[in-house]
Amino acid sequence: MGLSVLSHPQDKERLLAYFETQILQVLNWLASFSPDEEGGITRLLYTEGWLETQQALAVKMASHGLETGFDEVGNLFGKLQGEDRQAPSIITGSHIDTVVQGGKYDGAYGIAAGLLAVNYLQQHFGKPKRSIEVVSLCEEEGSRFPMAYWGSGSIVGKRNFEQIVHLQDTQEVFFADAMSRCGFGEGKGRKSRRTDIGVFIEVHIEQGAVLETEGTAIGIVETIAGQRRLKFEVTGESNHAGTTPMHMRKDALEGVSVMIQALRQEAVRLGAPLVATVGRLQVQPNVPNVVPGKVTFTVDARHDDEHALDSFCKWVMRTFTALAEKRQLAILGTEWFREEPVPMNDQLKQQMEDVCNRMSIKSKRMISGAGHDAQMFEHICPTAMLFVPSRRGISHSPEEYTKPGDLAVGVLVLTELLYRLGYEGEEL
Amino acid sequence: MGLSVLSHPQDKERLLAYFETQILQVLNWLASFSPDEEGGITRLLYTEGWLETQQALAVKMASHGLETGFDEVGNLFGKLQGEDRQAPSIITGSHIDTVVQGGKYDGAYGIAAGLLAVNYLQQHFGKPKRSIEVVSLCEEEGSRFPMAYWGSGSIVGKRNFEQIVHLQDTQEVFFADAMSRCGFGEGKGRKSRRTDIGVFIEVHIEQGAVLETEGTAIGIVETIAGQRRLKFEVTGESNHAGTTPMHMRKDALEGVSVMIQALRQEAVRLGAPLVATVGRLQVQPNVPNVVPGKVTFTVDARHDDEHALDSFCKWVMRTFTALAEKRQLAILGTEWFREEPVPMNDQLKQQMEDVCNRMSIKSKRMISGAGHDAQMFEHICPTAMLFVPSRRGISHSPEEYTKPGDLAVGVLVLTELLYRLGYEGEEL
Repeated sequence: MGLSVLSHPQDKERLLAYFETQILQVLNWLASFSPDEEGGITRLLYTEGWLETQQALAVKMASHGLETGFDEVGNLFGKLQGEDRQAPSIITGSHIDTVVQGGKYDGAYGIAAGLLAVNYLQQHFGKPKRSIEVVSLCEEEGSRFPMAYWGSGSIVGKRNFEQIVHLQDTQEVFFADAMSRCGFGEGKGRKSRRTDIGVFIEVHIEQGAVLETEGTAIGIVETIAGQRRLKFEVTGESNHAGTTPMHMRKDALEGVSVMIQALRQEAVRLGAPLVATVGRLQVQPNVPNVVPGKVTFTVDARHDDEHALDSFCKWVMRTFTALAEKRQLAILGTEWFREEPVPMNDQLKQQMEDVCNRMSIKSKRMISGAGHDAQMFEHICPTAMLFVPSRRGISHSPEEYTKPGDLAVGVLVLTELLYRLGYEGEEL
Repeated sequence: MGLSVLSHPQDKERLLAYFETQILQVLNWLASFSPDEEGGITRLLYTEGWLETQQALAVKMASHGLETGFDEVGNLFGKLQGEDRQAPSIITGSHIDTVVQGGKYDGAYGIAAGLLAVNYLQQHFGKPKRSIEVVSLCEEEGSRFPMAYWGSGSIVGKRNFEQIVHLQDTQEVFFADAMSRCGFGEGKGRKSRRTDIGVFIEVHIEQGAVLETEGTAIGIVETIAGQRRLKFEVTGESNHAGTTPMHMRKDALEGVSVMIQALRQEAVRLGAPLVATVGRLQVQPNVPNVVPGKVTFTVDARHDDEHALDSFCKWVMRTFTALAEKRQLAILGTEWFREEPVPMNDQLKQQMEDVCNRMSIKSKRMISGAGHDAQMFEHICPTAMLFVPSRRGISHSPEEYTKPGDLAVGVLVLTELLYRLGYEGEEL
């Protein structure tokens, strides 16, 4: 190990300045598709704006000299062919879809970073030993249909066409119809499932405020946290707010407010990396002068340790049940979503750390509390994930922002890593 | 005082049996108008079903020999003319409108009871000394337009046409247009404002569970409680539920859950007749995997003592502000509704108590936590209010229910009271 994209240490600043200009151009160009009225980006799977974006990206990839093609679900690949055509590909990229009123960095940054890195490598170092592909994954957010990781999941065999047969969006459009209108579907394009992937690297904004708060440039993801989502329905008695004395009430919202407190206190007591959130809560009948008869709410809990997560969720079920019984409230709790923690590849983490150290870039290992496409790829190949700071941790919002300088550092580290894997032929 | 509608004590059971049959017939007949799909009654002001009900009631009043007419806002009066045409009228009745998915007793029972009582008196005792009128008030609930007590308020001069100029329902239909389509409006019918009312008596279901729980037949309303409604907007920071460590959160819902607890504890500590309720609560963005950035909620507080109510509401404002500040949450609190407590007429309360005692009917004085048309009439004349039990206190629901026997007792007490006031000529 000795060669680097930086011939001289002073190249670093020049290259960062170059990437800074370039990444802003690409991100702003991508953001020009599917703008919404709130000043954000709303690019939902298989919508017109989504299709335009993918098609424009395909044109750009081709203009960069990449072999470009869609698979049958609409994942877009741009391949820089390597000398060894048999060797499994190195893939980098992220998802092109956004949430409703999302920002211009989540997902798009990983694609743009991949494009820039591969373009730079090709221009300066020519053909790599192993093929490098940039992927614009069709979907990750689950924001239009109740189905997340459709893009990466289809590639690794965790998603298939049977799973979407009954799915509809809120306008009652069927998943398969929306897909078909964009020209995709079973047999329409290259099979999504791939077995020729050697490495996957995803660059992404942190979507948290840890890097910014600590003044760290690069987060090396240790593990993508496991998630559990529970939902609860607490039923008391809906009564007149004026005529029901306090001691005769079975106020579902009062009971739930105690549960929210208990959840918070236990999560704080157990400490990081555990996080627990009541994000959605609905009151019935939700009228100012009626004692709430029913409250439904969700609990989202995450941890990098499966055992700790499991035991926390059992505590939640037990504690909420006891709190409800004490108040003569009925409670129904169910788990509706579960993802096991996914550790990233040790050697790749080591390599990223080494890249950062050699380039004097401050990095830290961290847990990803958010789910990412990388957790899908980890099922089939060594996978790595790299974070750049998010201003105030804000994401899934038009306010999402990362400083151009920080974006450039991410591109530089990715470029160096791809160089080592694709040109130097470092083995994993 | 000696004469009574009961010539012999044994007449009581016969009369109760008669009223029981009759009141069920009238209530079921009224319920046959404006049934909704949920098995309840939805009879909103100036809707087709509302108009049909008022018109059918007018026909029934006329068939009972009452002088029948609408005023300009759609209040319906049926008058049993008294010998002294100059003496102010004795009026009894309640409101014909319901909430969305309401029951068949709230409001309708007071009208039906008045109809039966007046009909019985006319049949058995002929013309009264003073005129007695049954009123079917057009509106009390404020369920279609943001305007409650439109019927009684128009009669007593607390409501007028200027106040409704800009009001629309949720379908953006203007108040005046809806009224006009039913044939009502300024100048279309008798002036609503009246100055010839001597007494108002309202019979109503309790809408609470106090009478049922204590096994008491009649509630004599001491005071209609004062109400304050406050609304709060608590703003923290909407953040990713996976990437935001517990200590970096400004969770608006967590803060509000503490406020709900504090409110409950203070209301329980201060004790009856204070009641305080958080009935409406909305979370933003209300998504399972996002830390709530904003919560809006209402507080409804009631007490029969204005000073106590005021000091409680000041405590709420002070305490919530301190709780928010401690958590670095912004809070905005405003009072959007206020009603002073309204004591009922002392002599009428005394008379009702006397009627109950003489008829061996168990009664108790109580606070009305709910608002009623009676509180409007108290501005212009001696007013009384009488409750019958509500099963499990349920109201504003298709589940609303009062035993037929309990309904009959209310009609009997009303009949006797009207007899004393209208035929015996008892002075107030």
